[in-house]
Amino acid sequence: MRIEVSLTAGSLPERVEDDTTAVVLDVLRATSTICAALAAGCRAVIPVAEPAQAEALRHHHRLLGGERDAVRIPGFDLGNSPLEYTVETVGGREVVLTTTNGTRTLLGVAGARRVLAGAVVNARAVAAALRGEREVLLACAGTQGRFSLEDFAAAGLIIHHLAAMQPVLLSDTGRAARALYQAYAGRLAELFTGSSHGRHLIELGFAADLEWCAREDWLEVVPEMIAGRMVLANN
Amino acid sequence: MRIEVSLTAGSLPERVEDDTTAVVLDVLRATSTICAALAAGCRAVIPVAEPAQAEALRHHHRLLGGERDAVRIPGFDLGNSPLEYTVETVGGREVVLTTTNGTRTLLGVAGARRVLAGAVVNARAVAAALRGEREVLLACAGTQGRFSLEDFAAAGLIIHHLAAMQPVLLSDTGRAARALYQAYAGRLAELFTGSSHGRHLIELGFAADLEWCAREDWLEVVPEMIAGRMVLANN
Repeated sequence: MRIEVSLTAGSLPERVEDDTTAVVLDVLRATSTICAALAAGCRAVIPVAEPAQAEALRHHHRLLGGERDAVRIPGFDLGNSPLEYTVETVGGREVVLTTTNGTRTLLGVAGARRVLAGAVVNARAVAAALRGEREVLLACAGTQGRFSLEDFAAAGLIIHHLAAMQPVLLSDTGRAARALYQAYAGRLAELFTGSSHGRHLIELGFAADLEWCAREDWLEVVPEMIAGRMVLANN
Repeated sequence: MRIEVSLTAGSLPERVEDDTTAVVLDVLRATSTICAALAAGCRAVIPVAEPAQAEALRHHHRLLGGERDAVRIPGFDLGNSPLEYTVETVGGREVVLTTTNGTRTLLGVAGARRVLAGAVVNARAVAAALRGEREVLLACAGTQGRFSLEDFAAAGLIIHHLAAMQPVLLSDTGRAARALYQAYAGRLAELFTGSSHGRHLIELGFAADLEWCAREDWLEVVPEMIAGRMVLANN
């Protein structure tokens, strides 16, 4: 298995080939939130770029979720905190989600054979779903075009699991990501609280989200993009 | 001290401010070679972008050095291997050097207050020269626009030394670089032989260069750009 790690939405390969399975990582918080939603029985998360697109998809079965500058969009049902996505709020419903970096990255990997959503919370499940793939792109979303420590650490955790299952051929970014994870294994929360976006979220009152998003491997969900909707993967 | 690490020549901050000291890192091999040259008594290394510019600066006191695709440019006196830059070849002389990634990065940080050349071999000396600075940019050159493991590890080593001397405020890339270094402390040669550019250089017969460039902290030289020439820094 060859594994590439791209660092931001802006530094994706120009064309993601259709022999590649892409895993989008926006750990604080979009992809963690998508995991939370599907784990809570949400039927699908529909990512869109702009709030107006979300509004256009609103109907009585759907909720609107998302953030701008990390804060819930006015008039939306939900923000971008995984703690809001519970059985009570999203069970049996669909959610239209618009976030800043995650959505852009999802669009950037649209040429891939499969597109999954990865995070720290579902890293082992994602690694299991990747078994047997030949070309894997771990696509870190980053934050506002910048490298994001928590996305990179999640890429490292997924690589850590993949390397335990099979031979892997890592790019330079893949080796660095694995080293980052290994340096902070079991204490990712500490890493997150020191990251640029992590500090920003703490200032905004979202410290509990960081704790949640930093818990390794405790959700068995693998969100997969099928016809524009993130749903539970079949494998 | 605030420390930022940029990952490639193409991802430098749009404008490097004049309160910043920049350290250019092109470990395999341009900045390692500049260190080797100055340590061997070379009077100055003059980096230029293109071989034709180097030719235009040729005169009887100067040597021309550089590579394209890692190989010595035809008609040049020296390639880009630090092992070629000895007292016998460059002592008392000037060298005009043209390399692919290092030169572009040097141009990109031209707005900085000071510009130094860093590598693994002189990391501790560079850290000492940075003492008391408030804004530091460790500018990894990368390879052909891509992230380079060895440049990132050298940034991590410099941060490792800086953090031992004073409080540091690290960007996300700075934290990841430090973790990478710590994972491979004392065995950077192993890291380099697995990197993308390292493997390429080994295929071309430059394995000894990798060993040389991976030796930590054994040269006391700090190359500094003064009026377009890399010379020994005063401090």
